[in-house]
Amino acid sequence: VAKEVAKLLELKAQLGGDEGKHKFVLKTPKGTRDYSPKQMAIRERVFNAIVACFKRHGAEVIDTPVFELKETLTGKYGEDSKLIYDLKDQGGELLSLRYDLTVPFARYLAMNKITNIKRYHIAKVYRRDNPAMTRGRYREFYQCDFDIAGQFDPMIPDAECLKIVHEILSDLQLGDFLVKVNDRRILDGMFAVCGVPDSKFRTICSSVDKLDKMPWEEVRSEMVGEKGLSPEAADRIGEYVQLHGGLDLIERLLQDPKLSQNKLAKEGLGDMKLLFEYLTLFGITGKISFDLSLARGLDYYTGVIFEAVLLQQENAHVEESVSVGSVAGGGRYDGLVGMFDPKGRKVPCVGVSIGIERIFSILEQRVEASEEKIRTTETQVLVASAQKKLLEERLKLVSELWDAGIKAEVLYKKNPKLLNQLQYCEETGIPLVAIVGEQELKDGVVKLRVVATREEVNVGRESLVEEIRMRTSRP
Amino acid sequence: VAKEVAKLLELKAQLGGDEGKHKFVLKTPKGTRDYSPKQMAIRERVFNAIVACFKRHGAEVIDTPVFELKETLTGKYGEDSKLIYDLKDQGGELLSLRYDLTVPFARYLAMNKITNIKRYHIAKVYRRDNPAMTRGRYREFYQCDFDIAGQFDPMIPDAECLKIVHEILSDLQLGDFLVKVNDRRILDGMFAVCGVPDSKFRTICSSVDKLDKMPWEEVRSEMVGEKGLSPEAADRIGEYVQLHGGLDLIERLLQDPKLSQNKLAKEGLGDMKLLFEYLTLFGITGKISFDLSLARGLDYYTGVIFEAVLLQQENAHVEESVSVGSVAGGGRYDGLVGMFDPKGRKVPCVGVSIGIERIFSILEQRVEASEEKIRTTETQVLVASAQKKLLEERLKLVSELWDAGIKAEVLYKKNPKLLNQLQYCEETGIPLVAIVGEQELKDGVVKLRVVATREEVNVGRESLVEEIRMRTSRP
Repeated sequence: VAKEVAKLLELKAQLGGDEGKHKFVLKTPKGTRDYSPKQMAIRERVFNAIVACFKRHGAEVIDTPVFELKETLTGKYGEDSKLIYDLKDQGGELLSLRYDLTVPFARYLAMNKITNIKRYHIAKVYRRDNPAMTRGRYREFYQCDFDIAGQFDPMIPDAECLKIVHEILSDLQLGDFLVKVNDRRILDGMFAVCGVPDSKFRTICSSVDKLDKMPWEEVRSEMVGEKGLSPEAADRIGEYVQLHGGLDLIERLLQDPKLSQNKLAKEGLGDMKLLFEYLTLFGITGKISFDLSLARGLDYYTGVIFEAVLLQQENAHVEESVSVGSVAGGGRYDGLVGMFDPKGRKVPCVGVSIGIERIFSILEQRVEASEEKIRTTETQVLVASAQKKLLEERLKLVSELWDAGIKAEVLYKKNPKLLNQLQYCEETGIPLVAIVGEQELKDGVVKLRVVATREEVNVGRESLVEEIRMRTSRP
Repeated sequence: VAKEVAKLLELKAQLGGDEGKHKFVLKTPKGTRDYSPKQMAIRERVFNAIVACFKRHGAEVIDTPVFELKETLTGKYGEDSKLIYDLKDQGGELLSLRYDLTVPFARYLAMNKITNIKRYHIAKVYRRDNPAMTRGRYREFYQCDFDIAGQFDPMIPDAECLKIVHEILSDLQLGDFLVKVNDRRILDGMFAVCGVPDSKFRTICSSVDKLDKMPWEEVRSEMVGEKGLSPEAADRIGEYVQLHGGLDLIERLLQDPKLSQNKLAKEGLGDMKLLFEYLTLFGITGKISFDLSLARGLDYYTGVIFEAVLLQQENAHVEESVSVGSVAGGGRYDGLVGMFDPKGRKVPCVGVSIGIERIFSILEQRVEASEEKIRTTETQVLVASAQKKLLEERLKLVSELWDAGIKAEVLYKKNPKLLNQLQYCEETGIPLVAIVGEQELKDGVVKLRVVATREEVNVGRESLVEEIRMRTSRP
């Protein structure tokens, strides 16, 4: 026994010795995950709905590398820059993983001197953030971006971006939602008339951005305590940021004795009014709220900003287990392309980014709850045999079907049992079985079995492809 | 003037001073590229053909993160490990970008204790190689992998992988191709009977792998000079590696007095015979060559290996400008999953990887040469107006069309000229224009113009959607 124990201890030391220093960890990196076939099936549904919408609006598609020169990303994200993943210096260029798709898009436009494009881009981005994976917050996650670049008449592309958010969130049936809209110029004008010094605009804007997560009192004490704003200025801001509404509020603020005197605020409010007129034509103002507390974190916005939030889950059970934040956001960034152009030439841009991971979390939980069975393959028919020694015949038939464009499988066994073959169809949702046997081969037919009904018919070999197509075409 | 010159010199120093140290470079990282909308359109055609084939064979799809724990990739790629991109240590785990999709797949199987799956995975992989972008060799490139994992009867999944290569290369109409097939066991048996010491198997295998790029004489002198193999052993290898053929060659080697005495070689040859029997059933032996010079670089192969090469271009002009190497490769790797399993449990695997970038290079050059016009959007109709002040009517109509699922655009101008609107359709290939005007609005109709023929018809507003659908449905 002592000898056995010694042996085991030695083995243990080999496996987990040195306080696990050499222990091999079988996992994906922190904040990332694999997608299983079932998850991919759900993900593809979501992507299909989003791509269909982007294409409906006439967008082209581009792709950019997963990493950029480090300097391309420098100075674009403000405080968030610390979350950028850098690559190791292995000799050569200094590289970073992309943090969003907007900065690479602006780099692409400047590099190729493109002044006019409507494009979408669906790809993964990387942020060394604190992951909260149950709420759909990852370090590697997809963004689905749609942007319109070019010099156009005011607010028409901006309105289309909001229409797109509305279409996608409606299509995906995620429950009730609200799109909050504001304008950086209105915010800056508001800060000015409230007595915020110019130098504090961006940092006070960051504080306002926290209003969706903390109460006004806390935001106010951050402004006054940490950021040194006068209590009077903070209180004036407090009055504005609780306002939200529609055209009526815009009209009221256009008459506001202080705001209407500020050039930026006036411009922003004028454009906001125009935006709401277009949104009225699109019939979507019911879910849009002009909200003075919306600030958005990123530095590069220059005009309209917006963010879509889900209001509540249809299903009370789901609501408890997933708490989702914003599912889409975007805005106008007229200065970003100019930051890349050697001559500083500007290309006005407006765009929207759909946050797919949160949407995916909701849909995944919904599928789990509903016990809906999701197929992970599209196989139309399994080529099977009832007797032994028919592997060659099965391979010949499945090959014929593949060549005819039929989605078909065989089991990779020389002599599988018919029961196992039928079970495989039940498990994977294959609707038809094409059974070859001695008699069928002699008669030049194949026995076609409908898995759901167990109905069987003999089909002439020459009409098998047509029969399978007919029986598996979607209604 | 002197003052001006000083000023200019100062500016120059600011821009390009310190030998360009601070000059901002507007480019993508070395060995990477953006995909323009036109390139994306070609890329999607290729992906669609490949995915259709994978689905036809009943594959599920998975996805894994772009980076893995560094240790996951360690010890899997032999000499190529130096080409792996590492991430900077920013506190936390040490990470590397994936080098292929096979190792992450094996990690996924072991981690989730999956012993049986047929899956595809299309994603970018990263290699710090010397890029040769004109030949389609990049540092960031797509791989399209199809793998079958599980304990099955011999050579059935292996044969299916070759069938898939055959289907894809035929579908894509890339010209004539050849799939070379060999087996690591035949190679190892051959090395043994030629008198190569066990310890030199892998390094001599690497030398054999270079036979597609250099003549035998050079490979021989590498074996003898650099790797210390005896000249006699090298010459014996030289006789074998020039052999290639089909079932006849396999039969001959099964009778070979030396090879037939080697257990590994005999096993490999027996399986190769079975493989060719299945390939005969699939009707594809015409393009498959059993080739004793095929070695494949990667360490993890344990059985059948294969590689597809394009033989020549249909178009002589294209042949000159693109020189493509292998376009697909793969093989059996029965030990890789076991390297990740804590108990070393093996899951036999065989798979194929399609090298999309080279295929894409060929198709792109072919499109360039043919001057084929590729549409980058799918827009069915442009909503236009002939008179001024109809922006609101255009927005209302385009919104109706979007809501009905029609792919539609408007120009983002208040008062665009009809000519500009028609020109936009010509440039982007939009087939229809829906024109609203004062008269049409009064009559409750829309003027539908066919761009190609200039034919115009008035269509009642209520039947517009149906009319557009009918006129733009594919034949």
